[in-house]
Amino acid sequence: MDIVDVLLGKPLATEDERGERIGPVKGIPIFGLDALSSAAYGPEAAMTLLIPLGIAGFEYTLPIVGAILLLLTIVYFSYRQTMQAYPHGGGSYTVASENLGTNAGLLAAAALMLDYVLTAAVGISAGVGALVSAAPSLQKHTLAMCLGILFVLAFVNLRGMQETGGIFMIPTYLFIACLLGMIAVGVAKAFLAGGHPVPVVSPPRLGPATEAMGVWLMLRAFSSGCTAMTGVEAVSNGVMAFREPTTRYAQRTLTVIIAILMVMLLGIAYLAPVYGVAATVPDGPGYESVLSQLLGAITGKGAFYWVAITSILAVLSLSANTAFADFPRLARAIAQNGFLPNSLKLRGRRLVYSQGIYALAILAGVLLTIFGGVTDRLIPLYAVGAFLAFTLSQAGMVIHWRRNPGPGAARSMFVNGLGAAATAVTVVVVLIAKFIEGAWIVVVLIPTIILLMKAVEAHYKRVERATRAVGPVSTAALGEPIVILPVEQWNAVSEKALRFAWQMSSDIRMVHVDCGEEDTADLRRDFPTLIEGPARAAGLAVPQLVVVESPYRFIVRPILNYTSDLEKANPDRTISVLIPELVESRWYYMLLHNNRSEVLKALLTFTGCQRTTIVNIPWQLPD
Amino acid sequence: MDIVDVLLGKPLATEDERGERIGPVKGIPIFGLDALSSAAYGPEAAMTLLIPLGIAGFEYTLPIVGAILLLLTIVYFSYRQTMQAYPHGGGSYTVASENLGTNAGLLAAAALMLDYVLTAAVGISAGVGALVSAAPSLQKHTLAMCLGILFVLAFVNLRGMQETGGIFMIPTYLFIACLLGMIAVGVAKAFLAGGHPVPVVSPPRLGPATEAMGVWLMLRAFSSGCTAMTGVEAVSNGVMAFREPTTRYAQRTLTVIIAILMVMLLGIAYLAPVYGVAATVPDGPGYESVLSQLLGAITGKGAFYWVAITSILAVLSLSANTAFADFPRLARAIAQNGFLPNSLKLRGRRLVYSQGIYALAILAGVLLTIFGGVTDRLIPLYAVGAFLAFTLSQAGMVIHWRRNPGPGAARSMFVNGLGAAATAVTVVVVLIAKFIEGAWIVVVLIPTIILLMKAVEAHYKRVERATRAVGPVSTAALGEPIVILPVEQWNAVSEKALRFAWQMSSDIRMVHVDCGEEDTADLRRDFPTLIEGPARAAGLAVPQLVVVESPYRFIVRPILNYTSDLEKANPDRTISVLIPELVESRWYYMLLHNNRSEVLKALLTFTGCQRTTIVNIPWQLPD
Repeated sequence: MDIVDVLLGKPLATEDERGERIGPVKGIPIFGLDALSSAAYGPEAAMTLLIPLGIAGFEYTLPIVGAILLLLTIVYFSYRQTMQAYPHGGGSYTVASENLGTNAGLLAAAALMLDYVLTAAVGISAGVGALVSAAPSLQKHTLAMCLGILFVLAFVNLRGMQETGGIFMIPTYLFIACLLGMIAVGVAKAFLAGGHPVPVVSPPRLGPATEAMGVWLMLRAFSSGCTAMTGVEAVSNGVMAFREPTTRYAQRTLTVIIAILMVMLLGIAYLAPVYGVAATVPDGPGYESVLSQLLGAITGKGAFYWVAITSILAVLSLSANTAFADFPRLARAIAQNGFLPNSLKLRGRRLVYSQGIYALAILAGVLLTIFGGVTDRLIPLYAVGAFLAFTLSQAGMVIHWRRNPGPGAARSMFVNGLGAAATAVTVVVVLIAKFIEGAWIVVVLIPTIILLMKAVEAHYKRVERATRAVGPVSTAALGEPIVILPVEQWNAVSEKALRFAWQMSSDIRMVHVDCGEEDTADLRRDFPTLIEGPARAAGLAVPQLVVVESPYRFIVRPILNYTSDLEKANPDRTISVLIPELVESRWYYMLLHNNRSEVLKALLTFTGCQRTTIVNIPWQLPD
Repeated sequence: MDIVDVLLGKPLATEDERGERIGPVKGIPIFGLDALSSAAYGPEAAMTLLIPLGIAGFEYTLPIVGAILLLLTIVYFSYRQTMQAYPHGGGSYTVASENLGTNAGLLAAAALMLDYVLTAAVGISAGVGALVSAAPSLQKHTLAMCLGILFVLAFVNLRGMQETGGIFMIPTYLFIACLLGMIAVGVAKAFLAGGHPVPVVSPPRLGPATEAMGVWLMLRAFSSGCTAMTGVEAVSNGVMAFREPTTRYAQRTLTVIIAILMVMLLGIAYLAPVYGVAATVPDGPGYESVLSQLLGAITGKGAFYWVAITSILAVLSLSANTAFADFPRLARAIAQNGFLPNSLKLRGRRLVYSQGIYALAILAGVLLTIFGGVTDRLIPLYAVGAFLAFTLSQAGMVIHWRRNPGPGAARSMFVNGLGAAATAVTVVVVLIAKFIEGAWIVVVLIPTIILLMKAVEAHYKRVERATRAVGPVSTAALGEPIVILPVEQWNAVSEKALRFAWQMSSDIRMVHVDCGEEDTADLRRDFPTLIEGPARAAGLAVPQLVVVESPYRFIVRPILNYTSDLEKANPDRTISVLIPELVESRWYYMLLHNNRSEVLKALLTFTGCQRTTIVNIPWQLPD
């Protein structure tokens, strides 16, 4: 196990959990990366839709981002309240389940799971997109780089929360510093130049206007920009990861994250038109991301540009990590209610829910592969799930306050109600605006996921009913079992099995399959002297030698048939099949033997009845 | 099993074997394909080496093929005698083992196994080469076509001897008819034109001479041409496949095969120079096989040409089938002496040695893949093994006649001695002439294969010693076992296991692993009322509840450790580990459960000691 220790770290004891908890300094990288990094693609997603407006698009950037900021403010206050009310983790799933019922909870669960898988995929894809934007020659390796980063993220997360936070601190704070620095310099230059600064590196020229602004275009731009808000749920879901006082630390973390995000969004939305920066066509030739253009225009393409671009790449890729921090917790919460496989509840060697990490990595990998690793195609899928979860969470909180009246409950209910209404409207807007582009997939997927979760729960319930012990153990005597002992030839292995059989029963059937080889005659010849005689002499049960003809040379099937015939003929007796098995000291020696005992064990397990047990008598060979 | 019946045919009973035996009409396709088809590449292999001689090469074609025909005649008479002496199958392995000892036998076995793998690979590769020669656009699919044909051959052979012979009859006899027809027409035209016929389609012009003939070149051309003889062993090895009187039918089959082959070789060697046909550079642009040129020159590229080319392709590809007919028989003979895995001795559902067919298909597939599906590169590897086997077989026969003196023994000894000497010289010639081109690989491979076979035998001997029953069964009472019963929670599954434990022993340890979950408390609470109380009341053994702390949340490891501690603390007692197991009715339901019981079973089997048995208590869930 040493190699595993080196790769994944020494196992952590359950009681070490407290030490794995974090404060805001590590909380911002772990839970805030998704929200913060969305500054790098949210405004651009909105601005991409304004390309057909040409130069006229500039005047709409700030209003659209303004609307998004307003929504963000409402959602922020709503979530602060949720965290207060659910100090053990107030994700949409928990809040919706507890207040709106199982179905609403599952709807939130499906939306959120989809959302986290998309967070992982979109984050990585956007990071690689930023790198490709700076070094176009890498474009053909897009998917490979995406999957590589995904693998690294899964791996780092398997090592645990503390280490993950530590690894992500530097790029996160570097990214924050670079972007805030760029905004500060940009605003200062713009101020000094009277609002018309000269770009250091001129952004690409805008194409001519081919469309005029309309309500439909505005809605679509707004929906696209809303992806900038998708990371807000994370902190609320991960409250329990924080040190005591958990709620206080979690709220403080959320406040810092939202504040920085708002400054970034506002800064970009203000500076882009001022410096003449517009979105370029994604996938098109000469594509350059808005942030890359803006950095060039404000600071030139020197050292700072490359540090900033690098930090953006890092943070975008790592923003997927938020999904890795949250998805396993969400999956565990769902599994605790029986709607997902039990294994998602288990904490691995480093106290993380390892199976959830595997599941997320596999799902995100599939998604990236299907979409070829390009962000833009994934965005339509993205916002619906996130805003659906927001809506259910806020609506759940409205019910929560009604059930828990108290000082300030009315005010809180109003805040959450406003949040629910605003996000519900956004869901509808996004769904309509993005339906054809891909949001319909979400409409198909979410019910499918819900049905799957319900099927899982139904199965667990069925298993529980079938295996529930209805009371004290039954002490009714079990009859002596009939022992079936398949024997190929008489040797030390079968001798060991026979001696074991004598301990179990006096009704022993040594079953030999006759394929027309000479071992049958040998066994028949030796049976009276080597087995029957000594048994009789010692007063032990004399086993019955059963020779089953096998004209087609099948070995396993005749034994199975004999067992099942015996089961039918003795409906009131238990049957034990003793399987002697040679165990080699090296796996490759196994190639020298047939694997019939393994096949027999597997088939007996699956085809046998409740009254049949399988006893394996291993015979370990010396090395 | 219905789908398997459809694909591979209904199982054949062992007693049906006689019906699966064949006569010469089917024997020629099955055992003669390899020998006959070598007419399509043997002469060409020799002529390829004459390319640098330019037009001067023509005069050497007939002498070189003449030398090969002389050798073939000697080998034919030698093998006729071998078949007489070994009516149960007189392959080189058998003859060499019985007369020259185990090591000589293994040398022949290694050489032959290599040879058969090469037969399969070279045959298919040559067939596809002929097709590519006719339709060059297929060249890039060479490897894929080779592997496809290999798969079909393996599949057909798994269906059994009778069907295989039936399938191969038409192409074989068509091939014989086409080639003999071409030779007849070619000779007639040449005769009518006074030895200088005009080609219907002129063969490509010969390049200028760049070398003069020398001994070295002659030897190399002879060695390459010797590949035309490699199929002769097959009939001798497969005598038992023939109907009674087996030897008579087998000898008659061999005679027909060799006679046809000699006519073909002689015809090609005579006609090629007469029609101005020389070999073209393999792999080079404008490559065209000698037979394709010859057919074009004699009959033009009309319907007959295409029928003939198709039959050549078919027969070359199917010539690999000789390996499929013989390799499994050879492998079985070796396995019967313990030098290869036992499974090679088993006859599958259609009375063929299925495992040998699988082994050959895999090995030939690997070879084809490594060499990219091109014949020419494989030929150097080919002749050494075949001639080594010839030599050992003939030398063995010399000893055989010395040990079995009788009328005609001296004459027979002389024939076999001449064969041994001639083929031994050929081995040396081929080895030297082809050493650098690849025969060295054989020199490395054959000893490696021999060492592997010896290792296999040593292992089987060791296993037999370790498991041999030294006499009558020991009736010394086994002490009551200690029963270990891992329990996660108290339910019907663990109840069934406990009731089974009561049948086995009064020393029962219910082992529960405490990972800090609530199930531990539940079990501790319920144990006295649900288990301890009822057991005591019924006068049954009260199981001991052992709770093992697992700070790192491992489940399987603590149980393994507990078992191994108990093994050490009780060196004179046997231990039974009862593993309750939930068995789902559908495999995909298994995804909803952990597979710990499987892991525990596997690890206990491999790490446990001789005194530990594993009892599996399956609990089948209703569908």
